[in-house]
Amino acid sequence: MKCLIIAAGRGSRLWRKARCKPLAPILGVPLIERVIRSAVEAHIEEFFVVTGYRGEVVRPFLDDLARRCGIRLTHIVNDEWEQGNGISVLKAKEVLREPFLLLMGDHLVEPSILKGLTEYLPNDGEIVLAVDRNVRNGLVDLTDVTRVWTEDGQVRDIGKGLEPYNGFDTGIFLCSPSIFDALEEIRRETEGEIALSDAVRLLGARGKVRVFDIGDQFWVDIDSPEDVDKAERVLLKRLAAKGTDGPVARYLNRPFSIRLSRWLSRLPVTPNQLSVGVFLVSMVAAVLFFFPGYLPLLVGGVIAQTASILDGCDGEVARLKFQRTEYGGWLDAVLDRYADAFLLMGLTWHASENGAKGLPLIIGFLALIGSFMVSYTAHKHDALMKDFFSKGRAFRIGRDIRLFLIFLGALFNQPFLVLGVIAVVMNMETLRRIVICRRFA
Amino acid sequence: MKCLIIAAGRGSRLWRKARCKPLAPILGVPLIERVIRSAVEAHIEEFFVVTGYRGEVVRPFLDDLARRCGIRLTHIVNDEWEQGNGISVLKAKEVLREPFLLLMGDHLVEPSILKGLTEYLPNDGEIVLAVDRNVRNGLVDLTDVTRVWTEDGQVRDIGKGLEPYNGFDTGIFLCSPSIFDALEEIRRETEGEIALSDAVRLLGARGKVRVFDIGDQFWVDIDSPEDVDKAERVLLKRLAAKGTDGPVARYLNRPFSIRLSRWLSRLPVTPNQLSVGVFLVSMVAAVLFFFPGYLPLLVGGVIAQTASILDGCDGEVARLKFQRTEYGGWLDAVLDRYADAFLLMGLTWHASENGAKGLPLIIGFLALIGSFMVSYTAHKHDALMKDFFSKGRAFRIGRDIRLFLIFLGALFNQPFLVLGVIAVVMNMETLRRIVICRRFA
Repeated sequence: MKCLIIAAGRGSRLWRKARCKPLAPILGVPLIERVIRSAVEAHIEEFFVVTGYRGEVVRPFLDDLARRCGIRLTHIVNDEWEQGNGISVLKAKEVLREPFLLLMGDHLVEPSILKGLTEYLPNDGEIVLAVDRNVRNGLVDLTDVTRVWTEDGQVRDIGKGLEPYNGFDTGIFLCSPSIFDALEEIRRETEGEIALSDAVRLLGARGKVRVFDIGDQFWVDIDSPEDVDKAERVLLKRLAAKGTDGPVARYLNRPFSIRLSRWLSRLPVTPNQLSVGVFLVSMVAAVLFFFPGYLPLLVGGVIAQTASILDGCDGEVARLKFQRTEYGGWLDAVLDRYADAFLLMGLTWHASENGAKGLPLIIGFLALIGSFMVSYTAHKHDALMKDFFSKGRAFRIGRDIRLFLIFLGALFNQPFLVLGVIAVVMNMETLRRIVICRRFA
Repeated sequence: MKCLIIAAGRGSRLWRKARCKPLAPILGVPLIERVIRSAVEAHIEEFFVVTGYRGEVVRPFLDDLARRCGIRLTHIVNDEWEQGNGISVLKAKEVLREPFLLLMGDHLVEPSILKGLTEYLPNDGEIVLAVDRNVRNGLVDLTDVTRVWTEDGQVRDIGKGLEPYNGFDTGIFLCSPSIFDALEEIRRETEGEIALSDAVRLLGARGKVRVFDIGDQFWVDIDSPEDVDKAERVLLKRLAAKGTDGPVARYLNRPFSIRLSRWLSRLPVTPNQLSVGVFLVSMVAAVLFFFPGYLPLLVGGVIAQTASILDGCDGEVARLKFQRTEYGGWLDAVLDRYADAFLLMGLTWHASENGAKGLPLIIGFLALIGSFMVSYTAHKHDALMKDFFSKGRAFRIGRDIRLFLIFLGALFNQPFLVLGVIAVVMNMETLRRIVICRRFA
């Protein structure tokens, strides 16, 4: 399916940091890029983008984006952008002769909405509008949003300031070419600006605008720098905890890492570079453990726990910036295993300070073995226990607990004790998994 | 699809060990069970088995098998089994009114042949015969096999001693109920025994027997204890090396383990019990490493290499006896990791015999870390390199090499050196995989 995006307007308010509104960065990714990447995640590969105001700046960016995303992108230049967004849509009349997705260049939308909508087939001459029925949606600016009145799955009326209303126009449409005819009809009868919602109102009165209910999925209209801030907060909040997060990750690490990710997302670093950076931070802690005495142990422990917090950022930034890759996730896991192993090696060295081999060597090995085995068995175990985790009915013993124990061991100057605890906890957990997997297999 | 199996005959020669031919064990699994399990692997769930000679012994076994395999199985009793195998087929006339798979109770067949054949749709009144075109097939007894003459994808003639011939009847048919009509027709005109091949000849003369070429897939007719021996050798040979076998596994371990598996398959032990047993053997080696001096080291090394050989048997027995489970493969991998870890721990202890911590501890840890990381990265790496392995264009660094190095280190009394070699080889291999996976990702 083809996708038309209108991004020709000037944007109503001041944009200080960006050269123009479509390029305004939201957590490091320009607004228009977020819109296009959401559509790409919904498996759309062919785009038509209408540019107008500052188009000479936006179009080279879009050409580069198309190359990076591997999509086809055609520019539609609208010099009459001051005549309203209806004109922007009309400019695409010649190139879109079958049903197409229509998006606003300044509305962030969840890809799942687009996936759901593109599975609809509009009847002849009909368009489908994605409607947000949650009229208490806190992200919506009631003075500016386009309201709709729907009955029997049809949009009956639409407009800013409409009363009564029972939903919001999300700016996401599945159009048939009948939208062009409606716009032409309005152009023949009207002087001045032509808004897309005028055409929707016309079709709605004829019973030709169906409703697609987006449920509680996320969309937000970005009109001002304040909206950017609001959108960033929502995107960050949606990161929150993953189902497989252990208790330390969930309640201690994530709250910090999400704040850090907001800042990191604005820097030109890739998630893989972050993974390597965090690994190097852990290595500093591991090296400190090799020095005798309490101070290096304490500082190492604090750095190890810091690395545990930072460890969430690579995945968070990847999710925030559409940079998730299978390799990235794998590399992060491999580097985490190395980091853990070196921390335990350092701790074992520290614990056997008297210079004698013996128990510390064995306990250290057992701690390392157990830790590795918990990671080694995680894939199968997590797959079996998926439902338990997502319902919060179980928590996962993993890296977050391991590093927090190391931190506590350093804090209380008990490296030997903490190695013992890690050895017991991790090997017992492995044994538990062997039993569980057997029962469910 | 339903499956008819005829197992009513007496079997022409002496069966010493088994109470009757269908229950004769081939590598620990009764002949008739192998036939049924092959069909189950080809996704067949409903069976009709014709029993006659010694049926009172075979039928309880089949009832138990049906329960174990979760299939539906209906007995068809043929008291006239001495009247030829055509009568056995005819007994199923009333219950099989659509196309069905017809198998001989004494022919071992590869499940993939059945999968291929059941994808065929026989035309009206037609049957399909799986034909082995390899007339030099060494498994075939030329004096006893049923030969066929085929032209244009049709069986034109069939019979023992047929000349000329260009294929063998494998005893695997996709039948339509027309086979019953042909058998009835023969019964009306014939006195004495009625063979299935008489009906096939009749249909063949009418152009109603299509050929399904089995290529070089495996089948064998079991008529005598000598055939059992022959079949066992073939089944064992087909185990041979897996694509991901490293060089030590391929050239040293497999030849031994396959011989052992032949013997183990006849014992009432499950593959999971074997996995645990081999793990315990490794643990004996690991414990020996904790004792000072050359002798415990040497004995431990020999036991470790023996465990490496035995480690192939659980998977081999599972494949030989239709006992492969996902859990079994996973458990084996988990126990292997523990075994390796304890061997390396023992070796580290042995290497630091002077009582001082220091280099041995670090090298031991690095050896353990590298070994774990090679296992941890194996899944992704092997998936990417699958084609290379199957074409023999690469060999895999893994457990076989690790345990062989431990054996060599024990043999030459160089525990410290071998820990260093393992540390370097395994960590370099992990690094190589990180680079390779990045390139292919």
